[in-house]
Amino acid sequence: MGKNLTSRQEDYSKWYNELVVKADLAENSGVRGCMVIKPYGFAIWEKMQAELDRMFKETGHENAYFPIFIPKSYLSKEASHVEGFAKECAVVTHYRLKNAEDGSGIVVDESARLEEELIVRPTSETIIWDTYRRWIQSYRDLPILVNQWANVVRWEMRTRLFLRTAEFLWQEGHTAHATKQEAMDEAKQMMEVYAEFAENFMGVPVIKGTKTESERFAGAEETFCIEALMQDGKALQAGTSHFLGQNFAKAFDVKFATKEGGQDHVWATSWGVSTRLMGALIMTHSDDNGLVLPPKLAPIQVVIVPIYKGLDQLDAIAEKVDPLVATLRKEGISVKFDKRDTHKPGFKFNEYELKGVPVRLAIGQRDLANGTFEVARRDLLTKEIVPADEVVERIKELLDDIQTSIFQKALDFRNESITKADTYEEFKAILEEKGGFVSSHWDGTSETEERIKDETKATIRCIPLDASEEEGQCILTGAPSSKRVLFAKAY
Amino acid sequence: MGKNLTSRQEDYSKWYNELVVKADLAENSGVRGCMVIKPYGFAIWEKMQAELDRMFKETGHENAYFPIFIPKSYLSKEASHVEGFAKECAVVTHYRLKNAEDGSGIVVDESARLEEELIVRPTSETIIWDTYRRWIQSYRDLPILVNQWANVVRWEMRTRLFLRTAEFLWQEGHTAHATKQEAMDEAKQMMEVYAEFAENFMGVPVIKGTKTESERFAGAEETFCIEALMQDGKALQAGTSHFLGQNFAKAFDVKFATKEGGQDHVWATSWGVSTRLMGALIMTHSDDNGLVLPPKLAPIQVVIVPIYKGLDQLDAIAEKVDPLVATLRKEGISVKFDKRDTHKPGFKFNEYELKGVPVRLAIGQRDLANGTFEVARRDLLTKEIVPADEVVERIKELLDDIQTSIFQKALDFRNESITKADTYEEFKAILEEKGGFVSSHWDGTSETEERIKDETKATIRCIPLDASEEEGQCILTGAPSSKRVLFAKAY
Repeated sequence: MGKNLTSRQEDYSKWYNELVVKADLAENSGVRGCMVIKPYGFAIWEKMQAELDRMFKETGHENAYFPIFIPKSYLSKEASHVEGFAKECAVVTHYRLKNAEDGSGIVVDESARLEEELIVRPTSETIIWDTYRRWIQSYRDLPILVNQWANVVRWEMRTRLFLRTAEFLWQEGHTAHATKQEAMDEAKQMMEVYAEFAENFMGVPVIKGTKTESERFAGAEETFCIEALMQDGKALQAGTSHFLGQNFAKAFDVKFATKEGGQDHVWATSWGVSTRLMGALIMTHSDDNGLVLPPKLAPIQVVIVPIYKGLDQLDAIAEKVDPLVATLRKEGISVKFDKRDTHKPGFKFNEYELKGVPVRLAIGQRDLANGTFEVARRDLLTKEIVPADEVVERIKELLDDIQTSIFQKALDFRNESITKADTYEEFKAILEEKGGFVSSHWDGTSETEERIKDETKATIRCIPLDASEEEGQCILTGAPSSKRVLFAKAY
Repeated sequence: MGKNLTSRQEDYSKWYNELVVKADLAENSGVRGCMVIKPYGFAIWEKMQAELDRMFKETGHENAYFPIFIPKSYLSKEASHVEGFAKECAVVTHYRLKNAEDGSGIVVDESARLEEELIVRPTSETIIWDTYRRWIQSYRDLPILVNQWANVVRWEMRTRLFLRTAEFLWQEGHTAHATKQEAMDEAKQMMEVYAEFAENFMGVPVIKGTKTESERFAGAEETFCIEALMQDGKALQAGTSHFLGQNFAKAFDVKFATKEGGQDHVWATSWGVSTRLMGALIMTHSDDNGLVLPPKLAPIQVVIVPIYKGLDQLDAIAEKVDPLVATLRKEGISVKFDKRDTHKPGFKFNEYELKGVPVRLAIGQRDLANGTFEVARRDLLTKEIVPADEVVERIKELLDDIQTSIFQKALDFRNESITKADTYEEFKAILEEKGGFVSSHWDGTSETEERIKDETKATIRCIPLDASEEEGQCILTGAPSSKRVLFAKAY
């Protein structure tokens, strides 16, 4: 298996596209903009799902399921929401096909036109708040802490596997609260959950912050986000959590009897991460040899490749390897013993490098004689010889070490990629030459933000939560500013 | 909480509809025919999913994800498939909305019409076999053993929660094989997996069999099924597994290089179960007091209700209950200690009966003094007093016992509901008076099947796999027959 992978240096974008396909993660389908997530890619997504789902439940959330279709009129109910979401979407207009009269195949049955068009959900606030109206009468019905795992469709014109596809998979949490404070706390909590997941499981360092008004979710009063940085110096929004105020409760007339005997509109949040995280995962760690996966998300954590001639040698190797496999599985480590006789060891080495298996063991005649294994780690591409009786411990150490060291590497890169700029010239030069986040003062207006975006393609990724108070002047207008925000070009 | 549940005797269908809503399982949404699966109902579905997913993986399958949309032309490629599926479905014709010029809201942008309409998948054979064409070149690429968990849409005119909804959730396995035998074995194996799941987890006895030609899946050469019997004597198809021959491989031109150096079309299977299983679960076990759930699928296996006046008494109870809760959780038993002060014990008893919690503990002042709990089992509605130090063991026994005894009860009912009929008069009388399965001889023709269906509403549910050879005469035509088949009215 020759990898023939374009290098990142040569063409980062091409490297990414090739890697996604060659590592068997996903591919384009016969439907424009819609991807097929292949078993290996889906196994990674399943691990993400399992961990996120555990974290959601630990914080008191339950799963539910709401319809894929949204009546067109629902979208119009929340004014700013419709502006943000109603435009590029899949519209169902008919509910029947029929045989063409000329026998040429099947055609839409024009007599089966829907009275009201249905939109394939681009996000579910409207259908869910229409439902919550029936669920909520009193403060006793609150809070509602619900999440759904679902597919959504946004008709994107330019698509890229995982990063931007017409259909994608995600989870969307939708919560309802009796007080503003409780809803705000929930929105912040879920941003923290996302950050913890990104850093501790994906090994992807993130900056927590809030969005500017113009970058906020359509219908939100505050959007919290986690922002990651890719190896090419472009930022990627990895998750968002929205404080929606009472906007959706007002649009869908969801009131509750308060403890004090009054009536009030319900407070809301929504929060989501999607298969876009797969893109962040791939672009944060991988190299010119292929994927690099954090052990906590690797479908195969350890692969064992036998080096042999003839079945007798393979049998002798299997005698050593089979009990090791059993031991590793008992330790909860996923392991594959690749005995395929149809492929040579070199081919297998290449394949597992490409697929980012964190630890690779090889065992040949010399190892058999010496009672050793050759142990290689994917992130550093280093090898060592380990005695058989120490190999389980060494594997456990390596898995831990790879998990923390790929995070540290990404963190170091990210931190080196935050540059302060105090003038617009400096700002533009950094964006042009170095990339990454530029930390600058901004006068707080959408006009300035817009002009900077038009002139440099950089957007305000977030106002970091930990930004310190600091007197300064907007890089564009010179107007006073009290803290720096982070700009970057972004995916 | 008054249950106000219609009794089964009074109106079985109404009983079912009310129960689904009152037990917080699901409800109708604002979108015609599409349901909202509520958290309690979804928690049961999640447990089904987890177990099925484990069984699929144990038999070598992996999950993947394919697009929700199917280009209209794909549906025409397999002739019998299009007849069965292309008609009642949601058709996407446009990809954009816009603001109405008169300011009245949003309208479909007629300029954004798709060149080719997209169908929201009613099932995924066509898009998947279009994909497999790219994945399969050689026998080395086979078998492909893939499953997907997904939502599908079939535009049903008359819908009922879980049993028949426009959108439903399901899993669909799609496998590709080098030989006919291997594909046939796979299709049978998955029927066995479904049967094991239905009986051992859901406690729903099923009859394994094959469908007659006219009841087969559109595009299949053989359909294996599991058939369950509801308490009203109607059958419910709980899962199907199809041997598809080379039909889809031929329609989508999927050939592979054989080991022997030739070229052959690939052999296929597909198999699925859906949220319809929720309907089977509910209708098999539940009674006039509400749901009865098998412990293996109950989101809450044990509920503990304190009976007290004032917080001092509650504290004293909690001192006994908290360590019990911890012990039960350690044993892997899901338990809820319902300390809500807003509801009385009687209300809670009713609520948990309605929701089918298998075991209920109550503890009041007398129990505190005596060191006992009152333990009630949901299926038999019996109560007993159990000393505190024996209660964990007793709960474990009860959970096991409820699991097996609700299955046994359903099995006894099902077995009593299979009646032989050797004349058409007898056949009709049984259907009319007793219901259930009627075991009769049939001449093997679709015409006879059709006429019986027209005249009695009964269909051939299956040709049981274990049907013994027996000479007989078709109840309608008197033509010779070599084994009995099972007829029933069905959901």
